[in-house]
Amino acid sequence: MHTSIATVSLSGSLTEKLSAAARAGFGGVEIFENDLLACPLAPEEIRARCADLGLTIDLYQPMRDIEAVPAEEFARNLRRARHKFDLMTRLGADTVLVCSSVSPQAVDDDALAAEQLRELADAAQESGVRVAYEALAWGRHVNTYEHAWRIVEDAGHPALGTCLDSFHILSRGSDPKGIEDIPGEKIFFLQLADAPLLAMDVLQWSRHYRCFPGQGGFDLQSLLTHVLRTGYAGPLSLEVFNDVFRQAEAGPTAVDARRSLLLLQEAVGATRLPPPVVPTGIAFAELLTADAEPVTAVLAALGFTRAARHRGKPVDLWQRGEARILVNTGPAARRDGTRLAAVGLESAAPAAAARRAEALLAPVLPRRRAPGDAPLEAVAAPDGTELFFCARGRPGPPHWRADFEDLAAAPAPDPTRIDHLALTQPWHHFDEAALFHRSVLGLDAQDSVDLADPYGLLRSRAVSNADGSVRIALGVGAAPTDDTAPAQHIALATDDVVAAARAFRAAGGRLLPVPANYYDDLAARYEFAEGELETYRDLGILYDRDAGGAFRHCYTQTVGRLFFELVQRDPGHRGYGAANAPVRLAAQHQQR
Amino acid sequence: MHTSIATVSLSGSLTEKLSAAARAGFGGVEIFENDLLACPLAPEEIRARCADLGLTIDLYQPMRDIEAVPAEEFARNLRRARHKFDLMTRLGADTVLVCSSVSPQAVDDDALAAEQLRELADAAQESGVRVAYEALAWGRHVNTYEHAWRIVEDAGHPALGTCLDSFHILSRGSDPKGIEDIPGEKIFFLQLADAPLLAMDVLQWSRHYRCFPGQGGFDLQSLLTHVLRTGYAGPLSLEVFNDVFRQAEAGPTAVDARRSLLLLQEAVGATRLPPPVVPTGIAFAELLTADAEPVTAVLAALGFTRAARHRGKPVDLWQRGEARILVNTGPAARRDGTRLAAVGLESAAPAAAARRAEALLAPVLPRRRAPGDAPLEAVAAPDGTELFFCARGRPGPPHWRADFEDLAAAPAPDPTRIDHLALTQPWHHFDEAALFHRSVLGLDAQDSVDLADPYGLLRSRAVSNADGSVRIALGVGAAPTDDTAPAQHIALATDDVVAAARAFRAAGGRLLPVPANYYDDLAARYEFAEGELETYRDLGILYDRDAGGAFRHCYTQTVGRLFFELVQRDPGHRGYGAANAPVRLAAQHQQR
Repeated sequence: MHTSIATVSLSGSLTEKLSAAARAGFGGVEIFENDLLACPLAPEEIRARCADLGLTIDLYQPMRDIEAVPAEEFARNLRRARHKFDLMTRLGADTVLVCSSVSPQAVDDDALAAEQLRELADAAQESGVRVAYEALAWGRHVNTYEHAWRIVEDAGHPALGTCLDSFHILSRGSDPKGIEDIPGEKIFFLQLADAPLLAMDVLQWSRHYRCFPGQGGFDLQSLLTHVLRTGYAGPLSLEVFNDVFRQAEAGPTAVDARRSLLLLQEAVGATRLPPPVVPTGIAFAELLTADAEPVTAVLAALGFTRAARHRGKPVDLWQRGEARILVNTGPAARRDGTRLAAVGLESAAPAAAARRAEALLAPVLPRRRAPGDAPLEAVAAPDGTELFFCARGRPGPPHWRADFEDLAAAPAPDPTRIDHLALTQPWHHFDEAALFHRSVLGLDAQDSVDLADPYGLLRSRAVSNADGSVRIALGVGAAPTDDTAPAQHIALATDDVVAAARAFRAAGGRLLPVPANYYDDLAARYEFAEGELETYRDLGILYDRDAGGAFRHCYTQTVGRLFFELVQRDPGHRGYGAANAPVRLAAQHQQR
Repeated sequence: MHTSIATVSLSGSLTEKLSAAARAGFGGVEIFENDLLACPLAPEEIRARCADLGLTIDLYQPMRDIEAVPAEEFARNLRRARHKFDLMTRLGADTVLVCSSVSPQAVDDDALAAEQLRELADAAQESGVRVAYEALAWGRHVNTYEHAWRIVEDAGHPALGTCLDSFHILSRGSDPKGIEDIPGEKIFFLQLADAPLLAMDVLQWSRHYRCFPGQGGFDLQSLLTHVLRTGYAGPLSLEVFNDVFRQAEAGPTAVDARRSLLLLQEAVGATRLPPPVVPTGIAFAELLTADAEPVTAVLAALGFTRAARHRGKPVDLWQRGEARILVNTGPAARRDGTRLAAVGLESAAPAAAARRAEALLAPVLPRRRAPGDAPLEAVAAPDGTELFFCARGRPGPPHWRADFEDLAAAPAPDPTRIDHLALTQPWHHFDEAALFHRSVLGLDAQDSVDLADPYGLLRSRAVSNADGSVRIALGVGAAPTDDTAPAQHIALATDDVVAAARAFRAAGGRLLPVPANYYDDLAARYEFAEGELETYRDLGILYDRDAGGAFRHCYTQTVGRLFFELVQRDPGHRGYGAANAPVRLAAQHQQR
């Protein structure tokens, strides 16, 4: 299917937007009038630029408040429209969008609307243009797709059809089933946008909060299914007004947009992608650091041992139980701190997992990083984290491990493993990250939660596989360039957080101190066994409960912007300590 | 009256919040539980810190979902409450807030609610604490102030009263007149918050969009009048949940908060402030620059002449007609560009104007900047712009002019004057800026408008005096650290923008080029006299209309982040070219 994106969905100048759309693989664009007006290129030059980029111009949007108005007003509108049809001829765009009138001058007269739209379509036809009439959700008299279609049908002009926009249909709660009553060839255009389910004024909701399919709460799969059943064969086009996308770099936003459309096409059976291969565990987390000393001191205090060393690169494997952490001091390490740069995901079918990621536009990384390395499938997540798909379950050690030479005897059996990883996302790409992890890796996403940091509200959203052996908390700061953004961290699961915390401290590790006031509140909220609360207070262990049980956790000192968490999770507990995050964040600020 | 602010209204650690509240002149605080839990100080230490700062702790907020619940749940709640009453004794806080229950366990039984609140009040009384019961707008069964008061009245306990919160009352559209039926001594507390009028879910509205009185759309003056008629003598306290304030620096936010409360007190006659003295014109705009050459070249091309020079400082007066621009190359100038640093406002009573500004917490600047200077009243606006109040109408030249020595003959009469100044505001203080200009200077504010920049949505809000001789456009970028923020500019009014633009270009000035596509659209929208549009196209003149007439304007090249605009405004036109801003902003990006 031909896919398209409205230029208003991307930031930058018109030519920046066109380049981004083409690079992401869109076949066409809708040009929003303001983008053309502000562009120094003549319409013929824009047409040539699009042709060079392999983009068609599928829709132009220059007109509002055309129909159902007094005759002299309509005459002015028609004069203006003829100007725009000439422009469209120069531009090479053959479909014009006309939204239902919001003008106070518009009258509630469907016959008049049909008559004037017919006259408009006549003028359009002379220029080889066709008119797609769309009901705005807040149109003055016409605000449902059924109503817009009735008028189009009454007008009965070959150059007049309807345009369907998922936002205008679903924001009003209209039933999309009735779409099937429209002949497909009279649906001239289909605009797709999702949106979070917000109870707010629909105009504001539409102009500021739309998002790409799969990132909101609308059932676009059902809507698109109904549209395709009509025989509609036109473009699937994304028209997304969103304050965040307006600020974000156009290139990544266009990739995010096209990925969301590919997933929607997959969902309705309009395209086939390699199926997801859900990871079955975390093989390793890889830290990049210019100076390994501070972070390995913490690892040693956490009971990790340096188990192996890479044969060709400055990478050490630190291990405790099933938790494996690679410490890489290679050339990509930066002076400015230790960061979590890569994650190894255990996969039953690494090549298939990588093929799905590639089909969904994730950059594929070289399979061999150096001659002699075992080949390893890898892609980059939207935040730049490298994801390695590591074979599991075949005889012998996994491939990646073969590149490492043992330094110590096999580590003693130990229940420690990685409970979850917390990854900081670039501000403009939080929703993209959740969609990526859900769709590319097949993980389930929880709802996003607000976390009150002393200097702003942060957001966090967790994704995980069904048995909880892969859990990733995606976090984002309060503002685009927020340095209060949550630091990355690695949470280690233990079956006795008190013992683990004591051992860490005894080995010289520093735990994050938690204010006494927090424990006074715990005493008011819960009943604890004799001495239990005093132990938590001494060690800085935080406590939370949900229907599935308790969650006990504490934090190490921070190394750069990275820290570790020790977690004792009751098997049914689904949380990540969000209730305690304000106390933890304040304590971390206090330590700086 | 005693004024107070909830710690949740300010950013930072608890001690940062307390310091900011005290510095701004608040008499007390409400402590929000999370702030206490995250604080490393013991309750007694917090109490001592507040006492040092001259702050009382007027309210503590630790409890939710207390009342109208099954007996065993209530027993747990009472146990928790006793813990909190002990804490409050240590803290020295004597009033606890209890919000109406939102728990699914709560039953719709006013008698039970009254009985349990009576029992709670008994326990509170033992610790010398009183309970203020408040209806949340989204309370499960109790969500109006009248209902909460009925329950308090039924309970009939001396340690139980009601808390009124303007948000919960006005967001539901309740009539505040009924407040007068409550005896003042049973209103234990009054929380004030304004909010923009948004049609959205009330819980989200409450938690993210509250603002300080006068910055939203609620009629707080009427509400407060009703409250004071009851004989209420407790604190006026601001409880404002706002995502922006959470990120902003606490110090300026606290000043903004207290200014808004002073204005509310003034409005209800509870305090007297010096009355506003509305400025009658713009005496001058002062530019600060390390290198005067680029900007004075533009001024010269605009027809300004160097009319005078300051007797003691490196400041030149450039003048054309009634437009006066000071170019200051003094020590405060920075290498990084030319900026609009000060504005001279003509005032019928400069000293009185400064007294009002001072009473409303504007920093007062030294009257004499150097020995020998004529004394001049001046204050700083929230964005740091220095505002000079310059006498007008008395015989002889204004004082400020006496510090300057004429360089040229008096400038020829000329209709040029300053139409408006555009000042960029710090992101977190946009609403503060509008309130400041309205309340301190007595200017009227228009609605705020969104302007689509290629890299994000900007906002702009204009303030002006009645005859339009003082107009200031306050602008703000799309994000806290947005370098696409609108540059400052000075708009010069002319009675013939075409002649002015031609003269500027003939003198070597560079006008901002405007895309041809913009003029094609103008041709479609309006009918112009023969040749008119070609002239506009040639010069880059933009065109807009409103009910009051036309607005023709064009822009000079940018010097640093400052540029000039030439404006021909029909007398009735109230706008500032917002419709053309996207084209202008895109053209400016193109020039970089």
